[in-house]
Amino acid sequence: MNGAPAPDAELLDRVFLTQVLEPGDETGGRWLRERGVREVARSLRGRGAPLDGVSEKRWAGLRARAGRAAPAQALDVARDAGVRFVIPGSGEWPRQLDDLGDARPVGLWVRGPAGLRMWALRSVAVVGARACTEYGAHTAAALAAGLAERGWVVVSGGAYGIDGAAHRGALASGGATVAVLACGVDRPYPRGHTQLISRIAEQGLVIGELPPGEHPTPSRFIVRNRVIAALTRGTVVVEAAHRSGSLATARAAQRLGRHTMGVPGPVTSGLSAGVHELLRKEAVLVTDAAEVVELVGEMGELAPDRRGPVLPRDLLEPGARQVLNALPGSRAAPADEIARDAATTPDDAVARLYELRALGFVERHGDGWKLTRQAVISVRGDPGQC
Amino acid sequence: MNGAPAPDAELLDRVFLTQVLEPGDETGGRWLRERGVREVARSLRGRGAPLDGVSEKRWAGLRARAGRAAPAQALDVARDAGVRFVIPGSGEWPRQLDDLGDARPVGLWVRGPAGLRMWALRSVAVVGARACTEYGAHTAAALAAGLAERGWVVVSGGAYGIDGAAHRGALASGGATVAVLACGVDRPYPRGHTQLISRIAEQGLVIGELPPGEHPTPSRFIVRNRVIAALTRGTVVVEAAHRSGSLATARAAQRLGRHTMGVPGPVTSGLSAGVHELLRKEAVLVTDAAEVVELVGEMGELAPDRRGPVLPRDLLEPGARQVLNALPGSRAAPADEIARDAATTPDDAVARLYELRALGFVERHGDGWKLTRQAVISVRGDPGQC
Repeated sequence: MNGAPAPDAELLDRVFLTQVLEPGDETGGRWLRERGVREVARSLRGRGAPLDGVSEKRWAGLRARAGRAAPAQALDVARDAGVRFVIPGSGEWPRQLDDLGDARPVGLWVRGPAGLRMWALRSVAVVGARACTEYGAHTAAALAAGLAERGWVVVSGGAYGIDGAAHRGALASGGATVAVLACGVDRPYPRGHTQLISRIAEQGLVIGELPPGEHPTPSRFIVRNRVIAALTRGTVVVEAAHRSGSLATARAAQRLGRHTMGVPGPVTSGLSAGVHELLRKEAVLVTDAAEVVELVGEMGELAPDRRGPVLPRDLLEPGARQVLNALPGSRAAPADEIARDAATTPDDAVARLYELRALGFVERHGDGWKLTRQAVISVRGDPGQC
Repeated sequence: MNGAPAPDAELLDRVFLTQVLEPGDETGGRWLRERGVREVARSLRGRGAPLDGVSEKRWAGLRARAGRAAPAQALDVARDAGVRFVIPGSGEWPRQLDDLGDARPVGLWVRGPAGLRMWALRSVAVVGARACTEYGAHTAAALAAGLAERGWVVVSGGAYGIDGAAHRGALASGGATVAVLACGVDRPYPRGHTQLISRIAEQGLVIGELPPGEHPTPSRFIVRNRVIAALTRGTVVVEAAHRSGSLATARAAQRLGRHTMGVPGPVTSGLSAGVHELLRKEAVLVTDAAEVVELVGEMGELAPDRRGPVLPRDLLEPGARQVLNALPGSRAAPADEIARDAATTPDDAVARLYELRALGFVERHGDGWKLTRQAVISVRGDPGQC
């Protein structure tokens, strides 16, 4: 599906819909649920009756956007920028986004070597204030590094302040991180984070609902937050003033049944006041990565059992199988060595290792990676497979 | 009873018991419950059978202490130092201490102008680390000042660090504070707090279980904490490392059904680590006095209804009635002015005002004091009483 020579009709229709509907449009979501992608796209293209629940003016506006939409061209532009389009029901779609109901994204634009679905299974959001303090930046980076070291993927919004510190902390420890943008994934925002976001796209994933070329707007930032909340097992707010946007992400996480966590700070700091407010109501106080993992690590239906792999090796994608086969039988190895033995790049190897981690085949061990006990047993029990 | 010319037999027996039994001795508490004060004192004086549940050696030790005890003399020494002895069942006894069961104090030595029972009705403990940070000291002082401004009595242990900052914060805002010592109330500990504790004895109350002249010991500090927890409506821990004594106070408060609260701090500070641990388990996060009062202000059976006085004016002690009569009918007045009009000292006036506050007659208003609406109504409704 990703950049396949002949994209199927639903994929093209969904690209078209991301060009017409704003992210999080629940009326559009209802149309899709009631009528199906094909019929909604036909109607918006003027080849069917107008859809219900919107004013004439709004319908005219949607029709005008539909007239300007060029999905095949958008897919080409995306492909040239190394961006793929992932749709609900496809193999890379993170099924937990279905919890968003009619506000579920129409599809996600994805940049980066890893598989989104596997990464999202063991992910935590670390979010907070743009204008954070040194304390907040330090704490976010340390928390993200600790999560990455424990094999967890750090999701954030790519913004200045806490978001950036969280991404950097994960990258610095050789870990996995996902930036969820409120604009086209080919046009990094904020501009000052162009390098950081490029780096994330190399070692991690940069994703978003908006088609290539689109700008962020205040409302797009707000609806973006629901994707961060839904994608992850829990959201940690590091610093936030009263009425901060990251509190909205935490509350969305709460509504979706995800874990909501906050890092305390001095009561004399206005940038901790919003977090403290959250901690007094719905969130759990956390002070380090171990406490976050203690909470989100209670695995529910979204993830495979921690005790071992659930997929037979021969059902793995070839790239992942290659990396798995490159792991030594009984000791830990650094990602560089594994990459060399698997004949791939270190970034690709790290991406695959995190996928394999989510599936229970491998685990982090100090700075390196090793097979889980169960993966070793499954190999010994059935030597023909390895 | 306080320094009355002929102390009754039970009072003298209980003074004797504070000279023989260590604070918090639950075997002694059981004896008192099962046999009564008179019989336990007789046995310890060798005029009855040995009591059960202790070794011969321990009984001999108690008998030796009993032989050295001189209760009448201790009462004289206390009286000369301005110290009274308050026993269970007497008018000044804080009945919430009965929640301690067999660990209930045999009696309390009390220094200072206020009535302990009334003050304790609207009191909050503010405790924490001795070797606190600047942040902790600042926060404790601000919290105590805010509690005092809202008419709440601040209880602490008189120690260096958080305790001292809390007492000073309450004193500085002209408020009420109680120091619960782990030694004789005539011998301030720590020595560096001699002046502070004297000041508390002038404007507030200095109390303890140990008879005059007694030294503190490590175990006496520990058992003292239960009195702080039981006396107050809730305990706030401001800074505490892991395994700090103030966490024990908070847990005692929890077991006694009191509110347990903690002030967060930076996760990078070891002196906040114990508080964060508490907040992750049983305590409520608070950041200022308003949040503390929001919690402890939900009055239970211990205190009169906030909406107005429960005692007729003519049942008030003469000193309190004099101060009440000195309040202007419709405006707020500073404590100094009230003291002048009541022909008493400012410290005595403040002590009485806090008692009247606990009884619902008066309330703080900015820097001054005024009659509550209900007190005014009760005066108007029955003008003969005022």
